[in-house]
Amino acid sequence: MLTRFKHCPNCGAAVVYEVPADDNRERAVCHACETIHYQNPINVVGTLPVWEEDGRVLLCRRAILPRHGLWTLPAGFLELGETAAQGALRETHEEAGAQIELQPLYSLLNVVKVGQIHLFYRARLLSTHFEPGPESLEARLFTEAEIPWDEIAFKTTRETLARYFEDRRAGRPFEMFSADIA
Amino acid sequence: MLTRFKHCPNCGAAVVYEVPADDNRERAVCHACETIHYQNPINVVGTLPVWEEDGRVLLCRRAILPRHGLWTLPAGFLELGETAAQGALRETHEEAGAQIELQPLYSLLNVVKVGQIHLFYRARLLSTHFEPGPESLEARLFTEAEIPWDEIAFKTTRETLARYFEDRRAGRPFEMFSADIA
Repeated sequence: MLTRFKHCPNCGAAVVYEVPADDNRERAVCHACETIHYQNPINVVGTLPVWEEDGRVLLCRRAILPRHGLWTLPAGFLELGETAAQGALRETHEEAGAQIELQPLYSLLNVVKVGQIHLFYRARLLSTHFEPGPESLEARLFTEAEIPWDEIAFKTTRETLARYFEDRRAGRPFEMFSADIA
Repeated sequence: MLTRFKHCPNCGAAVVYEVPADDNRERAVCHACETIHYQNPINVVGTLPVWEEDGRVLLCRRAILPRHGLWTLPAGFLELGETAAQGALRETHEEAGAQIELQPLYSLLNVVKVGQIHLFYRARLLSTHFEPGPESLEARLFTEAEIPWDEIAFKTTRETLARYFEDRRAGRPFEMFSADIA
């Protein structure tokens, strides 16, 4: 969740929230150095890695807050200096130590309440050897029947997994989908 | 382009850029109030509005900097409190005063150099009556032959338009595509 600014990141003076001229929403405005500070939604990028030999899906169990101990698809905040695909690949390496081949974008999920967009790419696992990083307690493969639906950390992971298995059962091509998370 | 923080938006003290414990890249760290400030890529959302009766495409001529006087698809920064689709719809109203029906996401363009992802939705124009807002000098329809390729404001508009006409000439379905902008 984004935190409101109290001080100007440029000069340190106190900011006020007001609607600048030629604008239509409140921004953090600094009247000391005359700058306007914008805050915008940011992106979480991740993958849905599948071991094609038997159709199992990779999940990581979180070693950090929030949702410590619950399961998630490998994902994290997109960083400056990388593309969405590069970020998704990096997070999969960092959280699961998994080797993957990235496939097309699969889900775009708006999490308006916390100012985030989550983007998940499908991915083909190149091996079943994982090395969970410090943010994961474990990384393992699940068949559809084994998915711990009651212990999934985030709605965006749940939505992406649910749609994936639905598409697969229906024998549909995996078309990108969008959804809004309440 | 994102500006580096000089002061802490929480307490106003000077920040230092360093790699926090358990992290692997530099962040703006405040040692006065012990907070870490993250900066991440943000999103630009827009539309490619088409008048289906004759296949013409809507462009807006910019009344603001940067690229004053050049042509662009209607687009702007995604705001807190809205989904990507809502933001694309809003920008189309604000910049062109155009009535549209939103269609699926068409392009995801990484503009790593400035820390942005641009998302364009295809859209069906519901009328040819436009009311350009204060950020546009004019809004008008172009056939493919009329597109002012030398006066396009942004590479992401150019890339999205070029792919659209390519798909259309080839009679291909309009599948979402990703590209990285140098």
